[in-house]
Amino acid sequence: MIHINEHYLKLQAGYLFPEIGRRKRAFQAANPDAKIISMGIGDVTQPLAAAVVEAMKKAADEMGRAETFHGYDDGGIGYEFLREAIRKNDFAARGVEVELDEIFISDGAKCDTGNIQEIFGLDNIVAVTDPVYPVYVDTNVMAGRTGGPAGQGRYDGIVYMPCTEANGFVAEPPKRKVDIIYLCFPNNPTGAVATKEQLAGWVEYARKNKAIILFDAAYEAYISDANIPHSIYEIEGAKEVAIEFRSFSKTAGFTGVRCAFAVIPKQLRAYTKAGKAVDVNPIWGRRHCTKFNGVSYVTQAGAAAVYSPQGKKQVRRIIEIYMANAKLIRETLARLGYTIYGGVNAPYLWLKTPNGTGSWEFFDLLLNKAHVVCTPGAGFGAAGEGFVRLTAFGRPDSVKDALERFAKI
Amino acid sequence: MIHINEHYLKLQAGYLFPEIGRRKRAFQAANPDAKIISMGIGDVTQPLAAAVVEAMKKAADEMGRAETFHGYDDGGIGYEFLREAIRKNDFAARGVEVELDEIFISDGAKCDTGNIQEIFGLDNIVAVTDPVYPVYVDTNVMAGRTGGPAGQGRYDGIVYMPCTEANGFVAEPPKRKVDIIYLCFPNNPTGAVATKEQLAGWVEYARKNKAIILFDAAYEAYISDANIPHSIYEIEGAKEVAIEFRSFSKTAGFTGVRCAFAVIPKQLRAYTKAGKAVDVNPIWGRRHCTKFNGVSYVTQAGAAAVYSPQGKKQVRRIIEIYMANAKLIRETLARLGYTIYGGVNAPYLWLKTPNGTGSWEFFDLLLNKAHVVCTPGAGFGAAGEGFVRLTAFGRPDSVKDALERFAKI
Repeated sequence: MIHINEHYLKLQAGYLFPEIGRRKRAFQAANPDAKIISMGIGDVTQPLAAAVVEAMKKAADEMGRAETFHGYDDGGIGYEFLREAIRKNDFAARGVEVELDEIFISDGAKCDTGNIQEIFGLDNIVAVTDPVYPVYVDTNVMAGRTGGPAGQGRYDGIVYMPCTEANGFVAEPPKRKVDIIYLCFPNNPTGAVATKEQLAGWVEYARKNKAIILFDAAYEAYISDANIPHSIYEIEGAKEVAIEFRSFSKTAGFTGVRCAFAVIPKQLRAYTKAGKAVDVNPIWGRRHCTKFNGVSYVTQAGAAAVYSPQGKKQVRRIIEIYMANAKLIRETLARLGYTIYGGVNAPYLWLKTPNGTGSWEFFDLLLNKAHVVCTPGAGFGAAGEGFVRLTAFGRPDSVKDALERFAKI
Repeated sequence: MIHINEHYLKLQAGYLFPEIGRRKRAFQAANPDAKIISMGIGDVTQPLAAAVVEAMKKAADEMGRAETFHGYDDGGIGYEFLREAIRKNDFAARGVEVELDEIFISDGAKCDTGNIQEIFGLDNIVAVTDPVYPVYVDTNVMAGRTGGPAGQGRYDGIVYMPCTEANGFVAEPPKRKVDIIYLCFPNNPTGAVATKEQLAGWVEYARKNKAIILFDAAYEAYISDANIPHSIYEIEGAKEVAIEFRSFSKTAGFTGVRCAFAVIPKQLRAYTKAGKAVDVNPIWGRRHCTKFNGVSYVTQAGAAAVYSPQGKKQVRRIIEIYMANAKLIRETLARLGYTIYGGVNAPYLWLKTPNGTGSWEFFDLLLNKAHVVCTPGAGFGAAGEGFVRLTAFGRPDSVKDALERFAKI
């Protein structure tokens, strides 16, 4: 008899975004004339850079001619032209040496951060920040690395590290030993960034405890402060304990194009239960080439164009538009008396709800009074209660309208 | 201490294609003037259909304008325009009713057939044909659903069902009970197809034993015999026991574009250990939207163009080119005295090596004497020994040259 993977049945029903959608639709149905503006949106709104569009069209034409047709991307780890552009621009330019076969091109950081846990044993203890991107947790639940629900959206067996106003939304390494640590800086949802010293503390913890850091740097392009590291590999010794994830989604508007990459350093080791060291890079390589078959040539050509002189300029301009939104949101809401974090080195803003209002309560208030949608912080974890996430990804005119409505409530 | 998933260490090193590449490179290095032709290639050589290229360029242009930009494909299961084209053309046209939310668009049948096992329990008994597409086996090894290597490329705990000349390369359901059954028709590597009666036997077995059939129909577009089913859902009752996988890779030359889909019927149930029935469709939906984020809008637009009147004609023409190759290979080699199977309803041909020569021995002979590369049947499983796989995906001029060289040995 075919047995289901019963770990899936532990997953708690209300994934955040469907519930937001449900409430939004209910409000719209009851108020058909209301023009709802989303400030909770995690998706981008600016179109692709012209250099990217041109590169994709040229690549599509190449695919239509036998002499320039591209079939399977051999081994599926990505074309060298793209990996070389990444090596040079994302790492060497910041003084970080990454080798070409340490870079694995994929179709998304969600996929990579979701799939990476497969190559590690089920007995590892997982630590996540709270609030947290739900994918890190849910994929470990599905794999069976946790117990059942433990209330407030938590699961038994996971170590939660609260990120609060008190610690500036950057958790310190736990006192106890953990094995797999998910970190995301610039952070989704709080917009916090980690300093070099803070990251060095994490690297030291991982080295001492033979733990592994899964470092999600999907939002690094939004860092404006010159002292904040873009890559965890800017920390000495990190290549022995950390995997880094990057994405073109928020850097270059690729949410609908799908391209990302993971860096698995050759120095990185995991261990058998008997204590034998195993290289992680070829294990991920085996997983990648067995369960994945590469990213579209057209997409990779588009991603490479992000690193062209024109592409760099155009993509920078897009990020500036979003960061102008962030600045406007920060300044306007601060002036209105709100306490607000993030939005300086990240496209996310973390708004403290006034007078201790609950996240969902404030969500409903904002929807009903201002017809503005935000994302309740409680949806990202227990420590997110009392906050809502706003994003800078809206269209500038919509952001302005939304802020005017904020002023009226 | 971070533990590796030790099941990965059970995987046997020599994945087939790297070993072929190694021998090919060694031969080329020793014989720099030899013009090697690959007849083992699983990749396509014909360029994309013009209608597909045009649709992709149009979609890229849309992505470059704010009004027509597409971000995340909501939920990640695929745009309705593509799922509707699939529903109508691939299923309704053959009398099979499939609902839109039973279709999940993905980036490859390799990914889908590799990932699907995750949603089932680790205690299920897996059955595969022998020879078999290695991905079905390797992904179960990685998950821990098998024991260690059992010789001849096999693993303990998997039920192998030999496909031989005696059974026409279509295995019968096993006498013992199994839970997960991988079937691929038209078959890679043998080129065999299953009749309606044969598939009905499998569906009956699955219904009786509460087993699930994972039906890989990636090559259905190559079926020329009107009596051969294209979908397992042409068999009554199959929707309660089968998942079907399709791909645009071999249908429309998408090996470098990446688009495929899985059909998970709503009638399909799996069971908890306590015997409670669980709907499989929402469980896969949860996996899909947690570990995946949709296929590029540009790619989906290209895939939809395969179903346009122009696209259908152009894609059909490409398949005819490959099937003309298949016919030429079959007839020429038969005339030369070889015993050869497949190539009528499939792009794969299964050549019996003469006088009981081993697969790899014949591979070396063909490479050394004719400078032609084939795929040793033993690489697909113990029952593939004594055969090599040839494919119809070469360029017609190369296929002709290769066959002339065959004639000389």
